[in-house]
Amino acid sequence: MANIEIRRFCCSFCFLASLALNLFFVINPYLSEWKKQKLSSSWAEEAAAEAEAVALISCSGHGRAYLDGLTVDGKPVCECNTCYGGPDCSLFSSDCAADANSGDPLFLEPFWMQHATSSAVVIAGWHRMSYIFSDGSYISQELENHIRRVHAIARNAITKGKYLIFGGGSTQLLAAAVYALSMNLSTPAEVVAATPAYPFYKTQTDFFQNMHFEYDGDALLLKNSSDTTANVIEFVTSPNNPDGNLREAVSQGPLVSAIYDHAYYWPHFTAIPTPANEDVMIFTISKLTGHAGSRLGWAFVKDEDVYHKMQSYIEKAEMGISREAQLRALKLMKAILLGDGMEIFEYAYKKMSARWQKLSNIILLSQRFSIQEIPPLFCNFFEKVRGPSPAYAWLKCERQEDKNCNAVLQAANIIGRAGSLFNVEDRYARLSLLKSDDDFNLLLLRLNKLVTEEDEHKYYMKIS
Amino acid sequence: MANIEIRRFCCSFCFLASLALNLFFVINPYLSEWKKQKLSSSWAEEAAAEAEAVALISCSGHGRAYLDGLTVDGKPVCECNTCYGGPDCSLFSSDCAADANSGDPLFLEPFWMQHATSSAVVIAGWHRMSYIFSDGSYISQELENHIRRVHAIARNAITKGKYLIFGGGSTQLLAAAVYALSMNLSTPAEVVAATPAYPFYKTQTDFFQNMHFEYDGDALLLKNSSDTTANVIEFVTSPNNPDGNLREAVSQGPLVSAIYDHAYYWPHFTAIPTPANEDVMIFTISKLTGHAGSRLGWAFVKDEDVYHKMQSYIEKAEMGISREAQLRALKLMKAILLGDGMEIFEYAYKKMSARWQKLSNIILLSQRFSIQEIPPLFCNFFEKVRGPSPAYAWLKCERQEDKNCNAVLQAANIIGRAGSLFNVEDRYARLSLLKSDDDFNLLLLRLNKLVTEEDEHKYYMKIS
Repeated sequence: MANIEIRRFCCSFCFLASLALNLFFVINPYLSEWKKQKLSSSWAEEAAAEAEAVALISCSGHGRAYLDGLTVDGKPVCECNTCYGGPDCSLFSSDCAADANSGDPLFLEPFWMQHATSSAVVIAGWHRMSYIFSDGSYISQELENHIRRVHAIARNAITKGKYLIFGGGSTQLLAAAVYALSMNLSTPAEVVAATPAYPFYKTQTDFFQNMHFEYDGDALLLKNSSDTTANVIEFVTSPNNPDGNLREAVSQGPLVSAIYDHAYYWPHFTAIPTPANEDVMIFTISKLTGHAGSRLGWAFVKDEDVYHKMQSYIEKAEMGISREAQLRALKLMKAILLGDGMEIFEYAYKKMSARWQKLSNIILLSQRFSIQEIPPLFCNFFEKVRGPSPAYAWLKCERQEDKNCNAVLQAANIIGRAGSLFNVEDRYARLSLLKSDDDFNLLLLRLNKLVTEEDEHKYYMKIS
Repeated sequence: MANIEIRRFCCSFCFLASLALNLFFVINPYLSEWKKQKLSSSWAEEAAAEAEAVALISCSGHGRAYLDGLTVDGKPVCECNTCYGGPDCSLFSSDCAADANSGDPLFLEPFWMQHATSSAVVIAGWHRMSYIFSDGSYISQELENHIRRVHAIARNAITKGKYLIFGGGSTQLLAAAVYALSMNLSTPAEVVAATPAYPFYKTQTDFFQNMHFEYDGDALLLKNSSDTTANVIEFVTSPNNPDGNLREAVSQGPLVSAIYDHAYYWPHFTAIPTPANEDVMIFTISKLTGHAGSRLGWAFVKDEDVYHKMQSYIEKAEMGISREAQLRALKLMKAILLGDGMEIFEYAYKKMSARWQKLSNIILLSQRFSIQEIPPLFCNFFEKVRGPSPAYAWLKCERQEDKNCNAVLQAANIIGRAGSLFNVEDRYARLSLLKSDDDFNLLLLRLNKLVTEEDEHKYYMKIS
């Protein structure tokens, strides 16, 4: 009888325990929710879920959907790479031109998709509503600190002892520098850049021309006319756009100021023989992380007076740049600096040098076309001699009759950028190697066909 | 015996069922997690948690921490409202001046804190890296659509049939408009604004002065000199900064263009008698949602040629504005449009009119000071006659000897903005009513003391 009693007791106890456990499981989520709402708010979770849902929209690997894309049935549409279309970007348009015109840095998009967690950032509704940061400036001190650290890892600039100013892309800083350097001169400054030169310097300087400065064209021509009493402001692009050569100022004289555009001075695109150390050095996030849409650039400025004048420009032009762009850039810099901070440089260099190799292999087979030669060079970042990985191919049409290389390309369904825009003959054309994998692969396809047809042309010339 | 068997069976069944339920509760979370990882990636959750953690940092209600604030012990510091300090902003500095200088629109911060969920947005690492949107422009079509809808609800602008262009705050668009309207004129344009005028028009126009335009001062003076052959560009601020009056252009003649700065033309700050319908109308998110740090403004432009020229300016100046700012602004517009879309306007009007009332009640007791009178006016938005709720108090020192009102305020530990900056005598000073509750409450405290001392002064004058 005692055994039965014990067994009954145990059974009842187990049963009650099981019931109690079930009760706990039922009630606990509500307790957690209450606790969660007391201790923390989950206000950002809906935004996270929304972003994650959009990221899941399939665009066949040939596009992507964005949170702020136009919507169909309440969902953002796929925004397709060039030559792809349809609701999921799976339709390839075989007649479509390979567009190698713009320097749109989509080659880095896969990198950020692979680093989704470390590169995502939530912007709260009340994030930085004020005109100014708490130090009264327009500049995030945290972002400044991280940018300096990234430069230290890349070893591409001496930043110590230099002021840092942000602008709307290097775009806004180029103009700010011209204003700052020309503002108080006794005679108007002649603004120059050595040919072949990035067309935008002329376009922008002409647009904003005032009594203090005027665009005067080729720095080499001006140098040779050697009026050393003239005020000169020289844009020095290093490495150069379009040809990837490392450069220094060519203008000489006591009244020469140089604005160094180092947009491409990263291990992605060039060997880094030595850290840049000039008085005005401009960089842009567009060519470091690939975020051209952020419109965020920065300038290191040695001279305090020049720095204040550039600040003055930024204030009059825009009162500083977007706090959202600065927060997002900080997150990207933090992502770059994870681990040893080398990953993005290794990824980008590997990708760009592979692209250069593939392109070179095609052009090597050609007698009709040539591209720039970039000799191997010791790189202070990789600590070894390394080959080329430029942002652009500077194509030359070698045939006598091919005076307009861009037209030759156009006939082959390739869009390049004409040499005359860079102040040289149209025998040259620039091909962008920066765009998406789809863009680059199509470019290779078309170039390959063009070069292959060279041999057929020669054959037919021979037999006719 | 049969009863005992049935009872035993029921008990065993219930016990087994309870055990099965226990098992389900234990296993289910893991199943959910697996399902969650299969169906969606949770890459944004870490960012959400990080933002939520920062939002929980207590700053005593007198400040807030930001994701990109400077850090101490790995946590962003509290950034305190003026006159508050210490690690948690709980220390009030009683000698500190009430700063009513700037038009920093922090009065709307509590609104967004109350709407945390609907106003948060996640920016993915790969969000809009390209220079351009898929239509080749710099402008988010979704954001444009939502801005038009907000204007439709506010009834403050006719937007149909007008082009829309974005710029870096109204700041950048003011300059863009001056360039666009003056670019192809036969003689340089005289840029004017009717006194009292927002100082920045002169500061910016002087800074960017070129052969096409020049700042010429008071529109009323120019009108009276009546050279109707002159090209004139008039900035018309309506409601006006500093005095809140609704305005129209004063310049007359066939060669007059007007740039309407409608920054404050929202129910927050003024009755809306009729939707604005001019050829160039500029608005800014700073004064709609309070996000001055976003640097995002928009202009409605009627003339296609003017529109293209303004686009050209934005391109040369910056190549469009930050994609982060545009995405964030879209989220804010969506939050505004929830429900009947009226909430932010009702909130802002209620708050600003209460502030005006409190300030008025103090100044009413004064013979030393007066503020502008704004008569009640029918509002097309509220569909009733409504009283004033301006962004600024336009204070006048009435005493003969008080020629410098800002100095009078300064002696009372209040910082205003001097009348001379607005091109009138220093007998006037502007007081900002836009800032945080802490700022406004301190302003009231100091003004109250100042006005109270008036009576004491009169008493002592009487007995001496």
